Amino acid sequence: MSRDVAVIGAGMIDFGELFDQSLDDMAEGAYLAALDDVDDGIEPDDIDAGWFGTIDIAGNASSGLGASHPTGLFGIPMARVENACATGSTAFRSAVESVRSGSADVALVLGAEKMRDSAAGLIEGAALDQVWRGRGVTMPAFFGLRATRHMHDYGTTREQIAKVSVKNHENGSKYPHAHYRFTCTVDEVENSPTVTYPLNLYDCCPVTDGAAATIVASEDVVDSYTSDPVWVRGSGLSSDSLLRAGNEALVGFPASAQAAEQAYEQADIGPDAIDVAEVHDCFTITELVTYEDLGFCAKGEGGELIDEGVVELDGEKPVNPSGGLLAKGHPIGATGVAQVNEIYEQLRGEAGDVQVGDDPTWGLQHNIGIGRNATGSVSCVNVLSTER
Amino acid sequence: MSRDVAVIGAGMIDFGELFDQSLDDMAEGAYLAALDDVDDGIEPDDIDAGWFGTIDIAGNASSGLGASHPTGLFGIPMARVENACATGSTAFRSAVESVRSGSADVALVLGAEKMRDSAAGLIEGAALDQVWRGRGVTMPAFFGLRATRHMHDYGTTREQIAKVSVKNHENGSKYPHAHYRFTCTVDEVENSPTVTYPLNLYDCCPVTDGAAATIVASEDVVDSYTSDPVWVRGSGLSSDSLLRAGNEALVGFPASAQAAEQAYEQADIGPDAIDVAEVHDCFTITELVTYEDLGFCAKGEGGELIDEGVVELDGEKPVNPSGGLLAKGHPIGATGVAQVNEIYEQLRGEAGDVQVGDDPTWGLQHNIGIGRNATGSVSCVNVLSTER
Repeated sequence: MSRDVAVIGAGMIDFGELFDQSLDDMAEGAYLAALDDVDDGIEPDDIDAGWFGTIDIAGNASSGLGASHPTGLFGIPMARVENACATGSTAFRSAVESVRSGSADVALVLGAEKMRDSAAGLIEGAALDQVWRGRGVTMPAFFGLRATRHMHDYGTTREQIAKVSVKNHENGSKYPHAHYRFTCTVDEVENSPTVTYPLNLYDCCPVTDGAAATIVASEDVVDSYTSDPVWVRGSGLSSDSLLRAGNEALVGFPASAQAAEQAYEQADIGPDAIDVAEVHDCFTITELVTYEDLGFCAKGEGGELIDEGVVELDGEKPVNPSGGLLAKGHPIGATGVAQVNEIYEQLRGEAGDVQVGDDPTWGLQHNIGIGRNATGSVSCVNVLSTER
Repeated sequence: MSRDVAVIGAGMIDFGELFDQSLDDMAEGAYLAALDDVDDGIEPDDIDAGWFGTIDIAGNASSGLGASHPTGLFGIPMARVENACATGSTAFRSAVESVRSGSADVALVLGAEKMRDSAAGLIEGAALDQVWRGRGVTMPAFFGLRATRHMHDYGTTREQIAKVSVKNHENGSKYPHAHYRFTCTVDEVENSPTVTYPLNLYDCCPVTDGAAATIVASEDVVDSYTSDPVWVRGSGLSSDSLLRAGNEALVGFPASAQAAEQAYEQADIGPDAIDVAEVHDCFTITELVTYEDLGFCAKGEGGELIDEGVVELDGEKPVNPSGGLLAKGHPIGATGVAQVNEIYEQLRGEAGDVQVGDDPTWGLQHNIGIGRNATGSVSCVNVLSTER
């Protein structure tokens, strides 16, 4: 009944410590890169609507005007979306729904976050309840608790968790836009400074500035822009309380499983069909439990999946070829948008030194957020394909 | 191509100084009222997705979890939308697009704001640039400048501007959910304390706590819930820079005119068709220039429209029967949602003491925001009708 939607352009700036760039500077850079990326060219006037993804840590980008100003796009629908750390992919999903609904033919998704000029405490202030934080439940602790529980319940080892970092830093060392370009060993991860047991410094993503932009178009106009579109075949979004007894929120995120189920159902595929994925690895343990939540393996078997090399760049199901949040960085509003962009490039065979083999057809993007005083999680999963 | 969408339920709490209610308390109250309002009943499980509108002044409601927690709705798509003072209606528009796109059949819009426990300075901090504010351009001053310019360019009188306040307080005195229930005279408005010339205290909306909720449904399921739906026939959204030379931003808001044009075009009507409207009267002058932006009269003739009584409760085109922001209050994320609700009730003939006559068929809701350091405006216009 509704229209098919495709990605036709993707751009990002190099993520990093960008003290010389304002939020607008970063957003403008990503926008211009996305325009440049459209195969057969696009004019700003072609864009019918825009969605701005930011959690606005710096407090200076309220409303959709945060996307209007750096792009010069006025006179069209513009709105800001925020969904904790899943903000970027929720903005992407909103743009897809907007085009699918018929209210726009071409829509811009713009995600940006100025992290390094902001007090890190503000991030936790927005996400964690004061009572919890007062008792030590910072973000690393919040995820660290899930690591110890997973180790206890399933025999997951410290080495398996560390291997996620080794893999993603290896990938990131080859990824031109990544914040961190170094490689590391299991020993180095295990011997890096403890942040919160069992997670060490190299188990944690950095604090990173960045911006990314994606352009989506309806089936009605896509041919004007490219003969090589990547179709949005499924888009799931879910929220879950972490306080309810009896759920699996200590060894995974039910919202991720629910969002994935929605996306797979829309795409009429299962997890086995996925050729490449970009998933939310804010901490090493997050990626490991996400393998399970997305159905890449059974619950408790994430450690085996990494041991077997399945998720390596040259494995059967490469995960985070871009280096993930651990190496590329996690500028919150931009993170999910950059993930979508990487899947788009992988499926088009344009991912350069991190291109996965065997002509990937199906890609998945996964973004999770811990919000509202760490009492709940939100997760967004988008499934893309070269097949319409 | 896409599906028709209707409002099937609307609820709000009494707006006011609600020191005894948390943001969640208020949101829960509005949600339960909306559920209760559905003619043939609805179960929470029927809701497929939700959009949460808040600018989050209190800083405790980040992400769509702000809607999940007070409602208990987990496991479904939830996202937060923010578009400065147009947040509520942008959330409504997002829910409509979501249903129209086919990704949900029944969606919740929940808007809430805790204003009175927050430092008012935060509001301006989010909206006004420090340089501007340092030079005296507070929100009242920002709108006051437009009043003096309108008076200069078009001969609009202080009395005409005051009459907006008199009308809306008269309406608000009959509206059960309004924050202010008093009436006032032109003399009282003109002699109330000066806030910023020419705007006095009674030209300004109050600082108000509140929440409102709306439930929308697709054409495919609407019959299960009511035989008296109100259809969303048009939904426009636009942004405009206030810094560009040559625009009409000193005597109106181009974004409002653009959003209205989009909505009218979708509905295939013109402004003459509108029987009743709820518009954004954060200050008296805002409503007066909005008559012009929406095409209810020509540019510069807003003063005459109010002199002629056209916009009175018993006039040809009643505006703000609920008392508007001036009397009902302006809890930012809830404001646009409550406006939609009032139009829904008017078109169903259920507006009680403020019901407008002649069986209104077409209603319009208008919400404007000044965002991003007061360098731009965003405006959302929704057109509703009993005619599908």
